[in-house]
Amino acid sequence: MAATSSKPVPLLKDELDIVIPTIRNLDFLEMWRPFFEQYHLIIVQDGDPTKVIKVPEGFDYELYNRNDINRILGPKASCISFKDSACRCFGYMVSKKKYIYTIDDDCFVAKDPTGHDINALEQHIKNLLSPSTPFFFNTLYDPYRDGADFVRGYPFSLREGVPTAVSHGLWLNIPDYDAPTQLVKPHERNTRFVDAVLTIPKGSLFPMCGMNLAFNRELIGPAMYFGLMGDGQPIGRYDDMWAGWCIKVICDHLGLGVKTGLPYIWHSKASNPFVNLKKEYKGIFWQEEIIPFFQAATLSKDATSVQKCYIELSKQVKEKLGVVDPYFVKLADAMVTWIEAWDEINNSAEEKTTENKTAVAAAK
Amino acid sequence: MAATSSKPVPLLKDELDIVIPTIRNLDFLEMWRPFFEQYHLIIVQDGDPTKVIKVPEGFDYELYNRNDINRILGPKASCISFKDSACRCFGYMVSKKKYIYTIDDDCFVAKDPTGHDINALEQHIKNLLSPSTPFFFNTLYDPYRDGADFVRGYPFSLREGVPTAVSHGLWLNIPDYDAPTQLVKPHERNTRFVDAVLTIPKGSLFPMCGMNLAFNRELIGPAMYFGLMGDGQPIGRYDDMWAGWCIKVICDHLGLGVKTGLPYIWHSKASNPFVNLKKEYKGIFWQEEIIPFFQAATLSKDATSVQKCYIELSKQVKEKLGVVDPYFVKLADAMVTWIEAWDEINNSAEEKTTENKTAVAAAK
Repeated sequence: MAATSSKPVPLLKDELDIVIPTIRNLDFLEMWRPFFEQYHLIIVQDGDPTKVIKVPEGFDYELYNRNDINRILGPKASCISFKDSACRCFGYMVSKKKYIYTIDDDCFVAKDPTGHDINALEQHIKNLLSPSTPFFFNTLYDPYRDGADFVRGYPFSLREGVPTAVSHGLWLNIPDYDAPTQLVKPHERNTRFVDAVLTIPKGSLFPMCGMNLAFNRELIGPAMYFGLMGDGQPIGRYDDMWAGWCIKVICDHLGLGVKTGLPYIWHSKASNPFVNLKKEYKGIFWQEEIIPFFQAATLSKDATSVQKCYIELSKQVKEKLGVVDPYFVKLADAMVTWIEAWDEINNSAEEKTTENKTAVAAAK
Repeated sequence: MAATSSKPVPLLKDELDIVIPTIRNLDFLEMWRPFFEQYHLIIVQDGDPTKVIKVPEGFDYELYNRNDINRILGPKASCISFKDSACRCFGYMVSKKKYIYTIDDDCFVAKDPTGHDINALEQHIKNLLSPSTPFFFNTLYDPYRDGADFVRGYPFSLREGVPTAVSHGLWLNIPDYDAPTQLVKPHERNTRFVDAVLTIPKGSLFPMCGMNLAFNRELIGPAMYFGLMGDGQPIGRYDDMWAGWCIKVICDHLGLGVKTGLPYIWHSKASNPFVNLKKEYKGIFWQEEIIPFFQAATLSKDATSVQKCYIELSKQVKEKLGVVDPYFVKLADAMVTWIEAWDEINNSAEEKTTENKTAVAAAK
């Protein structure tokens, strides 16, 4: 095939959407132009729907504001958060693609130790397209990377790995700290470039940050619900954490992998720790009960799809976390609404799941 | 205090022994002189006891050959392997120190990406003296390193961590591959310097390599038995793996941490893959049953000391792995002999354990 363009066709160009929640003009996209321009963007506008969000020229995008969300979901729009970046999960729901990459609008292109710009999206795609190894730890990290492999003593029966559902990327410069840590260490910057990708072992939970995150929507999409945060809710800044606990329990149950590590983005600006403290403070003590709940959560053999797993989990949330605070009863109901809305929007979901299972079987 | 010497006193100088199993002259120590010279060495001579092993001048050491082992342990010497580097665990037993570092004699000083010599021992000591975090994964790796911390969403109740029992270091140049991988990828070299230390999560096993390994002998020593390998045994090159599975199950039970990652050493020479294949081949298929056994192993509430845990584990090995091969019945018996010998040699073990518990409680 003769090359007719100087631009190489990017990986998964027609199979991946980039989801960006925002309240401002998307000037940050200029820096990402070489890496994002050929992909489709889904912009979820947070807050005042009358405000006009400017998107730099040349990007292919669709934009949803609160009025659009209300119109499309009707009464089910109640499950989508308002005045919080948790609203981004609406973009996951309306995407028609197999893969999602989501990034915050204060994240810029980072440089690797040799001074080259890091193509974060390309690394996420590599992570998602290679298997995960949740059942046994490999001391040389991701065995599927160039120059690496499984070390001595790694069982051969596990070297095929399992499909990767989630790729969790990290941040140079401003680390993702909670408000108390921000207050105590206002000047701490993350300057350590760790050249590793690794699978988070089965049975181990992690704090998933939504700033720089990619996932296989067909494998795990319906569990990527970012909860009820922000306006009218008693809590904020726990949207991605909530999703992270849920997806990990479900991935462990379904035999799917979650990777963390590369790629890095450059996180430009620390959010206000005083504002954050107000948003987080209930989360900070609730998580002491939520995390043991998720660590102990088990799903039944009947939970064979992400939707079924998620509905089971919502029942357990209502029953076991409802006693912590009535908020969790409301959240459990919203989890059900989310799944109903997901299935309504993705009305061909059943066929997709079938296709997907065939693909996984073929990959084996 | 006025400095009277140009040499700084190294960390834990009087609390750490370096254990080296060998069959040859220890010229490799020349390269380690700046880092090891002020520590005490325990050399365990493998194979022919009449051979004289030359140790470079200026090192403080004690050396044990097979005759010494037989004399010291009497009939219990049967638990110490012969003609296999598994014999190194004899050095752990006779040490009187709190910490052990063990290194192979084909391992040299590696360089970090800035070209500086890596003081592997210093990094191991840092790993051992800072806590571990086995109950929840921290995405910025070891939160106790300079410039790092716990990320948003990490439960505050777990930020104290648990005492670290084991520090597993890695290898640049020749990776620790099994014989089949060596045969398939004879030219692969590990050139990736991953600047990370991380806790292996609770419930997850890993392939522990004995090439570059440090541990707290008071916390986990009696479980660091390297099994029956080499001369007269049907298997080799699984000594460190066996210890790794045992210590991980026991650390998980006792609430102790295992770290992996930094420091790197430079592994100079790939061993012969054909010889390795002969040593390993039973291990390669046995591990398919051994690993699920260890993954499922649980210890009783009465197992409150490492010795008690290890004896319980030996009974389970006999019962559940004895059916795989009679070798495991012999190994289970050797595990008991090892503990008896350990307690005999360390006759003040009980007092030490009490002291140690006090120290752990104080650290909390």
